[in-house]
Amino acid sequence: MSFGILIYPGVEELDFQGPWEIAGLWRKYAEGPAPVLVARDLGAVACAHGMRVLPDVDFASSPPLEALLVPGGFAAFDVMKDPGTVDFVRRQADAGATVLSVCSGTFVLLAAGLLAGRVASTNWKVVKMLRDAGVTVREERWTHDGPVWTSAGVSAGIDMMLAYIAERCGEAVASTVQLHAEYFPDPRVYGDARGSADVSAYIRALP
Amino acid sequence: MSFGILIYPGVEELDFQGPWEIAGLWRKYAEGPAPVLVARDLGAVACAHGMRVLPDVDFASSPPLEALLVPGGFAAFDVMKDPGTVDFVRRQADAGATVLSVCSGTFVLLAAGLLAGRVASTNWKVVKMLRDAGVTVREERWTHDGPVWTSAGVSAGIDMMLAYIAERCGEAVASTVQLHAEYFPDPRVYGDARGSADVSAYIRALP
Repeated sequence: MSFGILIYPGVEELDFQGPWEIAGLWRKYAEGPAPVLVARDLGAVACAHGMRVLPDVDFASSPPLEALLVPGGFAAFDVMKDPGTVDFVRRQADAGATVLSVCSGTFVLLAAGLLAGRVASTNWKVVKMLRDAGVTVREERWTHDGPVWTSAGVSAGIDMMLAYIAERCGEAVASTVQLHAEYFPDPRVYGDARGSADVSAYIRALP
Repeated sequence: MSFGILIYPGVEELDFQGPWEIAGLWRKYAEGPAPVLVARDLGAVACAHGMRVLPDVDFASSPPLEALLVPGGFAAFDVMKDPGTVDFVRRQADAGATVLSVCSGTFVLLAAGLLAGRVASTNWKVVKMLRDAGVTVREERWTHDGPVWTSAGVSAGIDMMLAYIAERCGEAVASTVQLHAEYFPDPRVYGDARGSADVSAYIRALP
């Protein structure tokens, strides 16, 4: 079973590249599932800031997935209206894959009907929009609710992935992966941009 | 002037993709320099965990750079012996570009002669190796010494980039970029893998 990561034109780079790195280290140092980049077709995908990435498989050639991670970006609001992509996500969930989203990737899960009756986290910019769509939003770094994991914006997918590995394989494996990623971030909060924005509760609560 | 990010076969994905995201948001929300991926040639680059990325420019077609970031990975120890790449890095520094490294990218800077008389940080796994090469190593998340910035492993390039932006454009710009990256990481340290490894001082000092 592989660990699938969806990409699409306009996807926010770090939304999927952070989890990719964590999945890659899990594979290398602790026999985790092979990470694969899945896209609608096999052409190069131009991401939000212009990085061009080649998918490994398309929807038709995707191997069986233990999990599918759906990243975000402004383009997620187009992707949530694309029946082919939404169907692919729903089919993976129906087949038993755990589904994870980063940032506004939550809206693709919403479109696939995977958030019904669930609690979810998302990018602080779209918390209100997700709530207005009827979802119970937790303003946290990430949320785990049954077979659905959701995280806050952009960089938060890294934290969610470590939590997912800890839950799936135990704390010691997450510890090994964290050490190889040298993921011991500087806790510094620069300036006060958060003071003038409608940020999530966990950000407001930081020192 | 652009913000150059070097890539090469076997480069560790997050080493350059973390800084790329931060540079991309700096460009989008605060008029930062355009990020460009620079490689020896224009073919797809297969990274450490298998992600294939297309460079934007090769050495010959690179635009003027205000800065060049050199990521790491095990392949950095091959790249440091490649005269074409090392020359490119040295020429950028000679032309006045700030040079930044992530992880074992420090060894490429070393090969280019850019660490003479300087203090540097690197991945915890290669601190001893860099010291044995005669460099004064600071076991910190990142280090700034004149026109040379160096960071610890893999994920640490994100922290270094925010510090670079704060120094270059002020705290308020770094604050805006941090908020758009939603880079307010979970401080959790999983398990005790660090207890059985010769980790850097800043990691040992974490709660």
